[in-house]
Amino acid sequence: MKKLVGNLMYGQSGGPTSVINASAYGVIKKAKEYSKNIKDIYMMKHGIQGALNEELILLDEKYNDEIDLLKHTPGSAFGSVRYKLNSEDKDDTDYKKLLEVFKKYNIRYFLYNGGNDSMDTCSKIAAFMRKQSYDINIIGVPKTIDNDLPFTDHTPGFGSAAKYIANTMAEICYDMYAYPVGKVTIVEIMGRHAGWLTASSALASINGFGPDLIYLPERSFSIDKFKEDVKRVYQEKKNCLVAVSEGIVNELGEFVFASKKKDHFGHSQLGGVAAKLSQLIAQDLKIPTRSVELSSSQRAASHYQSLVDVTEAIAVGEKAVEYAIQGMSDVMVGIKRVSSDPYSVEYNHFNLEKCANEEKKLTDAMINEEGNGITDVFIKYALPLIQGEIEPKYHLGIQKFAKID
Amino acid sequence: MKKLVGNLMYGQSGGPTSVINASAYGVIKKAKEYSKNIKDIYMMKHGIQGALNEELILLDEKYNDEIDLLKHTPGSAFGSVRYKLNSEDKDDTDYKKLLEVFKKYNIRYFLYNGGNDSMDTCSKIAAFMRKQSYDINIIGVPKTIDNDLPFTDHTPGFGSAAKYIANTMAEICYDMYAYPVGKVTIVEIMGRHAGWLTASSALASINGFGPDLIYLPERSFSIDKFKEDVKRVYQEKKNCLVAVSEGIVNELGEFVFASKKKDHFGHSQLGGVAAKLSQLIAQDLKIPTRSVELSSSQRAASHYQSLVDVTEAIAVGEKAVEYAIQGMSDVMVGIKRVSSDPYSVEYNHFNLEKCANEEKKLTDAMINEEGNGITDVFIKYALPLIQGEIEPKYHLGIQKFAKID
Repeated sequence: MKKLVGNLMYGQSGGPTSVINASAYGVIKKAKEYSKNIKDIYMMKHGIQGALNEELILLDEKYNDEIDLLKHTPGSAFGSVRYKLNSEDKDDTDYKKLLEVFKKYNIRYFLYNGGNDSMDTCSKIAAFMRKQSYDINIIGVPKTIDNDLPFTDHTPGFGSAAKYIANTMAEICYDMYAYPVGKVTIVEIMGRHAGWLTASSALASINGFGPDLIYLPERSFSIDKFKEDVKRVYQEKKNCLVAVSEGIVNELGEFVFASKKKDHFGHSQLGGVAAKLSQLIAQDLKIPTRSVELSSSQRAASHYQSLVDVTEAIAVGEKAVEYAIQGMSDVMVGIKRVSSDPYSVEYNHFNLEKCANEEKKLTDAMINEEGNGITDVFIKYALPLIQGEIEPKYHLGIQKFAKID
Repeated sequence: MKKLVGNLMYGQSGGPTSVINASAYGVIKKAKEYSKNIKDIYMMKHGIQGALNEELILLDEKYNDEIDLLKHTPGSAFGSVRYKLNSEDKDDTDYKKLLEVFKKYNIRYFLYNGGNDSMDTCSKIAAFMRKQSYDINIIGVPKTIDNDLPFTDHTPGFGSAAKYIANTMAEICYDMYAYPVGKVTIVEIMGRHAGWLTASSALASINGFGPDLIYLPERSFSIDKFKEDVKRVYQEKKNCLVAVSEGIVNELGEFVFASKKKDHFGHSQLGGVAAKLSQLIAQDLKIPTRSVELSSSQRAASHYQSLVDVTEAIAVGEKAVEYAIQGMSDVMVGIKRVSSDPYSVEYNHFNLEKCANEEKKLTDAMINEEGNGITDVFIKYALPLIQGEIEPKYHLGIQKFAKID
């Protein structure tokens, strides 16, 4: 627990969410309040890559108007990256370079905003700096639409993605009933190993228009059972709305449809599940189908931020600064739910190493017995997170986003 | 020009828009004001099919709360249909049945809300009823996200779809620049023969984040030129955002990618253009790609209605009733632009037969010389139509839609 005086460095990493920039806003706002401890604020361009290459943005007054726009700006306003640090034993080049940069810019606060992989990065940097006796407080700021970080009740980014997904499902459902004879509409939803986003589609049903069937990566997917389910619903309703996770797996735990391509972290590239299932249904059941991939809007639909989510995203940014100022390091900020009804939370912190590379999945109680839908346990968990609407900033009918550098 | 007393029948036909129910709202509101002339209001379930099968909804007081929700409800609240009436010489069964139903329910006002095919349906019914000397005023209420109806400056439904598309493109564009090395992102947009919706993606650029390349059905699409364009942009920006119409055609005027399946009107089924172009770029240029189909949200994103569009959608519904009350028949309501800056319109009417089966396309002046973008002429035309935001009705964080029958 060391109280330090120096400069702060903040970066974004991994897939954007529609509120990651709201967390940046929280960090900046709070850091400015602690001007005795924090002199300058540097933003890394493209996360850790910017730190390594000394591509940094000094946040001076000229950015004041843009900083306010961060609250409702999608993407990564400062650039993100998927860069995997070598383990220190293998190759410590990056770590040494970082130490050099930290010294050069007198960085005493390092705040990194990301998901599982980013917490791993933070944890490794913290361990190296400790060994080098370089005083720096390192705090992880959580974000991921996937909601799969452990310990925290939920992650900033999830609530807004869930709100976008649920409302879009409601619109698709209502639209689908236009014609006397309908279709099987299969909507593909993001979430590699955890079904939080796909399950959120069920929130649409609150007002009467939602999916009939939901398939999650937490349960093994049987194509035969899927066809049976679809046939039954379609016979009854002349329509069938299916929400399916991009990450559904067979009995062996293998992705049902995955490309052989891998990303930098060795993860298989997914996508096209809905299209393939649609073909199957059209061919085998002779029912008209439509497939929809919600695609990048799930993380980028800034206009559909949930007010609860933006508020919490700002708060975790602020808390990260407060914890660092108090002298904490090697922790990730977490959200603790105090009550669901009325909804209230507190903020806490967890050891970074524990948070890295662990994925949180839906509990058994949240999934129905047949494995084709969710239960009220999930609804009670997720519903508070999509509450409240925001007012995006428009100029000439188009959203205005922060322009930094 | 006959002034009549009796009942009114209203129906919806063809693909929904996010404001077709706002036109229904306008019809109902105005019809109630003319209670001396219009006694009861009947809604056809699934358009003309509901009229033929006597599946009608009598709009009594129990629906009052739901009627107000119609303004912001997507889809077709009363059901739509794609039903092609035979030509009367070949088979007049449907026409005779309609006459019987009109007499039984004393229908003297027939208002039909649709696009080109629906205006054709209206025109045929009007011709038959005239020959049978059955007094009925038949008015077409325009709607289509495609904006391809002739004579009217634009169609209700287009402005909201354009607002959704442009804002979603802005979000995708901002999100796309997150990583140091980007992708070619290809976004597929609806519009079978006319590029209005695809061109609207350009409105995103008003605030700095929009597509780099736009391909419309109005210009023949060369795969070689497309590859050159993409390569040039990607080399310069390490990213490339492409908006492409589902209806792009080759030099022979054939769809570049079309399935052999046809719908009831003999139209080829489209879709998958972005995915196929992405594969081409990935294979031939070795650049990472992502394809996005905006899909049914283009017509169903009720939360992204433009205020101008909702206002006009309500107004054409009201005008249809006024024209019918004045004794007009066989006309479609049109929108006449008085001025673009400041934007103002008047309403007028056109002969139904003229409006049927004709498609309005972008003018040459709206498309750039290279055929891969649009000009300021288009921007000046389209920008006023996406102005103003609405406040959707939410219950527990999910939009509330009208429930009728």
